[in-house]
Amino acid sequence: MAKYVYSFNEGSKDMRGLLGGKGANLAEMTSIGLPVPFGFTVTTEACTRYYEDGETIDSEIEEEIFGKLKELEDVTGKKFGDLQTPLLVSVRSGSPFSMPGMMDTVLNLGMNDETAEAMIKLTGDESFVMDSYKRFIQMFADVVKGVDKKKFDIEAEKTNDLKQIIVNYKEIYKQETGEEFPQNPQTQLMEAVRAVFRSWNNERAVLYRKLNDIPDNLGTAVNVQAMVFGNMGDDSCTGVAFTRNPASGKRELFGEFLINAQGEDVVAGIRTPQPISEMKENFPDVYSEFERIAALLERHYTDVQDMEFTVEKNKLYMLQTRNAKRTAQAAVKIAVDMEQEGLIDKETAVMRIDPSQIDQLLHHRFDEEALKSAKPMAKGLPASPGAACGAVYFDAASAEAAFDRGEKVVLVRQETSPEDLAGMVAAEGIMTSRGGMTSHAAVVARGMGKCCVAGCSEVIVDEIAKSMKSGDIIIGEGDYISIDGNTGNVYPGRIATVAPEMSGDFAKVMTWADEIRTMKVRTNADNPRDAKQAVEFGAEGIGLCRTEHMFFDEDRISDMRKMILASDREEREKALAKLLPYQKEDFKGIFEVMEDRPVNIRLLDPPLHEFLPSTEKEINDLAQQMGISPEKLRDKVTELKEFNPMLGHRGCRLAVTYPEIAKMQTEAIITAAMEVKEEKNIDIEPEIMIPLVGIDRELAFVRATVEETISEIFKKTGKEIGYQIGTMIEIPRAALTADEIAEEAEFFSFGTNDLTQMTFGFSRDDTGKILKEYTDKNILKNDPFMSIDTTGVGKLMEMAIELGKKTRPNIKLGICGEHGGEPASVEYCYRIGLNYVSCSPYRVPIARLAAAQAVIRDKNPQQWQDR
Amino acid sequence: MAKYVYSFNEGSKDMRGLLGGKGANLAEMTSIGLPVPFGFTVTTEACTRYYEDGETIDSEIEEEIFGKLKELEDVTGKKFGDLQTPLLVSVRSGSPFSMPGMMDTVLNLGMNDETAEAMIKLTGDESFVMDSYKRFIQMFADVVKGVDKKKFDIEAEKTNDLKQIIVNYKEIYKQETGEEFPQNPQTQLMEAVRAVFRSWNNERAVLYRKLNDIPDNLGTAVNVQAMVFGNMGDDSCTGVAFTRNPASGKRELFGEFLINAQGEDVVAGIRTPQPISEMKENFPDVYSEFERIAALLERHYTDVQDMEFTVEKNKLYMLQTRNAKRTAQAAVKIAVDMEQEGLIDKETAVMRIDPSQIDQLLHHRFDEEALKSAKPMAKGLPASPGAACGAVYFDAASAEAAFDRGEKVVLVRQETSPEDLAGMVAAEGIMTSRGGMTSHAAVVARGMGKCCVAGCSEVIVDEIAKSMKSGDIIIGEGDYISIDGNTGNVYPGRIATVAPEMSGDFAKVMTWADEIRTMKVRTNADNPRDAKQAVEFGAEGIGLCRTEHMFFDEDRISDMRKMILASDREEREKALAKLLPYQKEDFKGIFEVMEDRPVNIRLLDPPLHEFLPSTEKEINDLAQQMGISPEKLRDKVTELKEFNPMLGHRGCRLAVTYPEIAKMQTEAIITAAMEVKEEKNIDIEPEIMIPLVGIDRELAFVRATVEETISEIFKKTGKEIGYQIGTMIEIPRAALTADEIAEEAEFFSFGTNDLTQMTFGFSRDDTGKILKEYTDKNILKNDPFMSIDTTGVGKLMEMAIELGKKTRPNIKLGICGEHGGEPASVEYCYRIGLNYVSCSPYRVPIARLAAAQAVIRDKNPQQWQDR
Repeated sequence: MAKYVYSFNEGSKDMRGLLGGKGANLAEMTSIGLPVPFGFTVTTEACTRYYEDGETIDSEIEEEIFGKLKELEDVTGKKFGDLQTPLLVSVRSGSPFSMPGMMDTVLNLGMNDETAEAMIKLTGDESFVMDSYKRFIQMFADVVKGVDKKKFDIEAEKTNDLKQIIVNYKEIYKQETGEEFPQNPQTQLMEAVRAVFRSWNNERAVLYRKLNDIPDNLGTAVNVQAMVFGNMGDDSCTGVAFTRNPASGKRELFGEFLINAQGEDVVAGIRTPQPISEMKENFPDVYSEFERIAALLERHYTDVQDMEFTVEKNKLYMLQTRNAKRTAQAAVKIAVDMEQEGLIDKETAVMRIDPSQIDQLLHHRFDEEALKSAKPMAKGLPASPGAACGAVYFDAASAEAAFDRGEKVVLVRQETSPEDLAGMVAAEGIMTSRGGMTSHAAVVARGMGKCCVAGCSEVIVDEIAKSMKSGDIIIGEGDYISIDGNTGNVYPGRIATVAPEMSGDFAKVMTWADEIRTMKVRTNADNPRDAKQAVEFGAEGIGLCRTEHMFFDEDRISDMRKMILASDREEREKALAKLLPYQKEDFKGIFEVMEDRPVNIRLLDPPLHEFLPSTEKEINDLAQQMGISPEKLRDKVTELKEFNPMLGHRGCRLAVTYPEIAKMQTEAIITAAMEVKEEKNIDIEPEIMIPLVGIDRELAFVRATVEETISEIFKKTGKEIGYQIGTMIEIPRAALTADEIAEEAEFFSFGTNDLTQMTFGFSRDDTGKILKEYTDKNILKNDPFMSIDTTGVGKLMEMAIELGKKTRPNIKLGICGEHGGEPASVEYCYRIGLNYVSCSPYRVPIARLAAAQAVIRDKNPQQWQDR
Repeated sequence: MAKYVYSFNEGSKDMRGLLGGKGANLAEMTSIGLPVPFGFTVTTEACTRYYEDGETIDSEIEEEIFGKLKELEDVTGKKFGDLQTPLLVSVRSGSPFSMPGMMDTVLNLGMNDETAEAMIKLTGDESFVMDSYKRFIQMFADVVKGVDKKKFDIEAEKTNDLKQIIVNYKEIYKQETGEEFPQNPQTQLMEAVRAVFRSWNNERAVLYRKLNDIPDNLGTAVNVQAMVFGNMGDDSCTGVAFTRNPASGKRELFGEFLINAQGEDVVAGIRTPQPISEMKENFPDVYSEFERIAALLERHYTDVQDMEFTVEKNKLYMLQTRNAKRTAQAAVKIAVDMEQEGLIDKETAVMRIDPSQIDQLLHHRFDEEALKSAKPMAKGLPASPGAACGAVYFDAASAEAAFDRGEKVVLVRQETSPEDLAGMVAAEGIMTSRGGMTSHAAVVARGMGKCCVAGCSEVIVDEIAKSMKSGDIIIGEGDYISIDGNTGNVYPGRIATVAPEMSGDFAKVMTWADEIRTMKVRTNADNPRDAKQAVEFGAEGIGLCRTEHMFFDEDRISDMRKMILASDREEREKALAKLLPYQKEDFKGIFEVMEDRPVNIRLLDPPLHEFLPSTEKEINDLAQQMGISPEKLRDKVTELKEFNPMLGHRGCRLAVTYPEIAKMQTEAIITAAMEVKEEKNIDIEPEIMIPLVGIDRELAFVRATVEETISEIFKKTGKEIGYQIGTMIEIPRAALTADEIAEEAEFFSFGTNDLTQMTFGFSRDDTGKILKEYTDKNILKNDPFMSIDTTGVGKLMEMAIELGKKTRPNIKLGICGEHGGEPASVEYCYRIGLNYVSCSPYRVPIARLAAAQAVIRDKNPQQWQDR
């Protein structure tokens, strides 16, 4: 017969699947000789059997439990229901994965009216015993029978007579459950075990598993352990401690304890615990033993441990140990320290850092003390990390002016557009009331490394009246707000911020990551400043250089507009000829910074109306300024207006309609590369990227335009340079027909923002609210604009890769959507075989780390399955 | 050795692939003993060899050609270059598929200075001989050497001296080609054969093949045939004739001839030919022989023949026969007549009608005579077939008022919206300056069977000034225009129209089609009127009943708006309760018309802002009317505004946010069905369709809402009816994850409009101009909104079917996009295994016919490959 119950001395930490996390660690501590109260674990397989057997516990398993109980009684010398040496136990669930929502803990199980009486006689401490019994009834009722704890608390306040309280508690139990409180400890035990098994399938647990892709058939284990008491007087205590400081990473015992208390008191927060260091005074011997055990556990687990312990009458008992959660700073310091200490190797050190956390290290953050007293007025989307505090301005010009006066500025808009760029540059942070995680504000802010809270729909922004409002709070121009791009919180008034420190440890870990990873990390950068920042962060090339932002500078927007307003090709070419030198200088600047690193430049992508004003007043002003009739301008604006600009006349469709734009851009790219090669002796091989392709012949058409232009330049100059032409895969049809598209493309770059928009039919500018609702209602696990939807969007990506390689086995594959800097997405990109990811400069370190972790996890998925 | 040249008596009509269409028919006519001038065909394989051999004709093939030439000389008793009996031949290309852009015909080949002289002596007819020689030089120069024909025509006008003209012609030939005009007939022949081979790969031919999926390696044949002369005097003539009238289908010889002329003169139109019936007088014997041959050919080919013939000195020669093109009316009459005559079976009769043509039969069309003198002022998209003539009105209210006054009206708008419905109902036809083939105007007009020209961007429509303008032509309110929904032409002024006749023959063919087809044909209908019309056209159910149009009636739009403006759920439910009875009556009306036919009802789909006004004035008016503050209304309008409404808060997303809307609609559907069942004793099993699903859990969420509502009704009434719940597949992700979606869906209905929009990233409202450019530039072969893009969109559909059936083998599959009425798409739907197509009422007959043809073609694709 299979074995369904293990004593603590029969298991080990590697039996997590069978014994659950808690049980495996209790067994491990027991096996290495630590003072763990004895007990046993009913396995997860018993739980599975329970469900297979129609939610009953097989009699053979019940017998096995009672057999182990007997062993427990023998080891402890105590006995269930015995009046001389009554055995009390704790019953705790413990699944292979930490799983909120399941039944947690029943303490003091084994007590009944008789044992309580006996214990009073034995200890002479009525208050301790009655307190324990009372707790037991309440916990049992709560976790086994689902009776609200509060029902008992109200009763407790009515009298001081401890015995009467017990009577009342049992009465409430009977009222609520229709049954007498069970007096038989065996019955109590089996009820508790069944309750743990049942809790595996309660609604919250099922949902949690569904959301976290945990199989339903794993089951939970049940840990039954002899009770020890931290509440037996001043020579007893209970506490939690870390082997190193989980906030700073400093190598020191860190934690707190509470004298004369049980574990739940520490959590409840009724009494204030003391720092662990003070234990030295109260329990000098115990403390030094604990120090020894902590060091031993850390060495044994080769990671910082988060421990629970109890001291009963000056004797130390270990109740739990597990790997500790930690801040980003601590994670980096601990990983590097432990590698230096020879405790772990570099790969393990790299795996110890959560890439999504390290963003914290690269940005300003709020001072923790100052934050404690702050109350948010609203919450938006955490669109770009960091914290910012400044005076509010509602338009770019005012923001710029304030910046010039030396003010710290937060730019607040309903939604930003390329025309707000100067204001965004001037601002410490940006807040918008509309738009999602990939709205203009979010994307640009991330690119600049500036804090941004987007889509904060609770706030009504009135750009004309220059005010923002949420509930009763009204903020006017010049008033201060503070925004947190990590949480999405918006606070009225000022909160102090702290600057980032890039410690030497951080640099060390990143170097290790670079040694491990095989996938390249590039950056999305449109100007030399961003490119330089990204190279400092370790970028190995540019994966996406957008050319549209370049046209918004004051000295060129006018020529851009003339180009758009041109009534024929000749006029358009004249305007383009004026833009050409600007574009060439843009690219030269970038090439100079990037040196011999690859640079991928995307041809003009946005619809042309983005370069024209939209309101009547702006149109009139611009018309006057340009010396044309407002009517002509208005006609053009109307002509270019689109119902769904996302799906309109943009991307390569512009190059099909106006090949002369693509020609000008190609000329700028190629001549810039040639000149920099000449001037700096750097070999540059630009990648020219044609966006929004959905049809093979569409790409062929634009490719022909680009190639013609290039060969004309080569002919004219008598010189040649290398170049590549490729496309974005951002339209579903491009992925579906990637074999055809690859005929004309030397590289694919996945534009997962647009690909996600079109695959889901979600406009990123409009669906902030919907996506929140969808994640709230568990329709979606993640915002697909943040982490690649591997089921749907991923299927298209994998299809595109397979088809593309069929046509062109060596096709270069990258990603330049925002997902390129999100850890899970980066790992996915590695798994499906991309050559590089590209992300905004501030995400480059995250991507480097995630790419290294992908390699390590891929080598041994079993070892690293618990993210 | 392979055989590369066939004499006419060696081939047959089944050798189309080897001999080309023309050659195969010449051989066939020869083999059944008709008077065909003798000749031979150089095969398509010789053409393939030509390319394989580096564009040279292998000497063995050349020898074979000269061998057959010898045979030709023997049969005709004439000889190349002979001064007594000079042989002249025609050289014509002929590929397996009719292919414009290829080299066509050289006549009189074999002439040179000497033979010309000799022929003058032989015939005594200098003018005939010199005319022939002149034509030969000109044609040879044109088709063999690419010299512009006009170069010669100018010369021809300079003198009347025939001999001098020849001298001049040869001089021009030399100037243009740098060579003397070749005098050796063998040289002439081989040059012509090579020219035909070369023309297979000229740019236009390659493009044509690419666009029509004709393999490049087929090659073209070359037909060499002894010349006969219709220009040898008044006892000679040439002509073309049909075995039946190709316009009316009447069984009568129909055609025209020209006395003393060569074939090209008929085409050139310099002289006016006489009706064929008059041949009886001029050539009584020849005519009766021709009648006999025509009848024989029709029987032989079992189809109406389009024949070319020449009479040389009272002797009849057949030069070509092929199946005739015909009008829709003729096609129907001929198919039915031939079936009655026992010439063809019903399947063949059904295949003889082009489904895309029969639309003509169901709508008004312009009087052909009246149309001849009309000149279009602009051309838009042929969005809904038919012709309309009426006074122009620029808003719905004026259109309605004019209609009430008894005027015929054409509604002209920049773009229509649901608020224009009443105006569209009142109008004969609709013209818009914006929007594509699936814009609101187009879709609604097709649904109503009204003529519509959409996206006519050449016309500037000023709705405020009430005028439309194109070039110099300005049309004001009340002025007449005429629009042609079959061509997209817009004409100023009035053109008479002709009403449709649904003849008995038409009904007969449709019955045959119904007997053959296996795929069901449903209709898209939102009201009893359309449903009734569709049933008359043969619809077997409703595949899409949109519920949104129902809310625009004056008596309910106000409650709809109250629902939208509700500040909480309670208020919303109150407004919904008022809408419930209206909805129920809508559905009852439809159920009553449809009786026991299946009815598929889609829950509310469009974004809510479509129900609110957008301009400041409209907002103020409505606010006053509703008794609310304009500010509140404006705030809501602003809140609901979306950047890309197509990808916004609509479809099932509405039902997720406001389950109470889905509840109300479900209640209306189910109680309506129950009441009609009760009242009429009809068993109704409604299909409830949840739109815009992209995520399995999204569908599960809404499905739960719908099912809860239904079980409440069943509980309350104590009665039950059958129903099905399913979804549209219109979001790429739904297709990609159809296995997951099918868990919750009993049917899939492909919404190919939206699926095409998102797969291509084309907003149908914005891309009319782009798509025109794309088809003009041959980037796209067809507008994918008209005919399903089987490569990309189709791949998603096939994937969805495969995945869906994996989960639910019996899942019901349909299509409700506009493609459901387009013949090629209908055939595609049959091939991929859909159970039904659904289309607007006026397209139902087309779909029925196309569905039947799909079955027939599928049984024997080889036989019916030439569409």
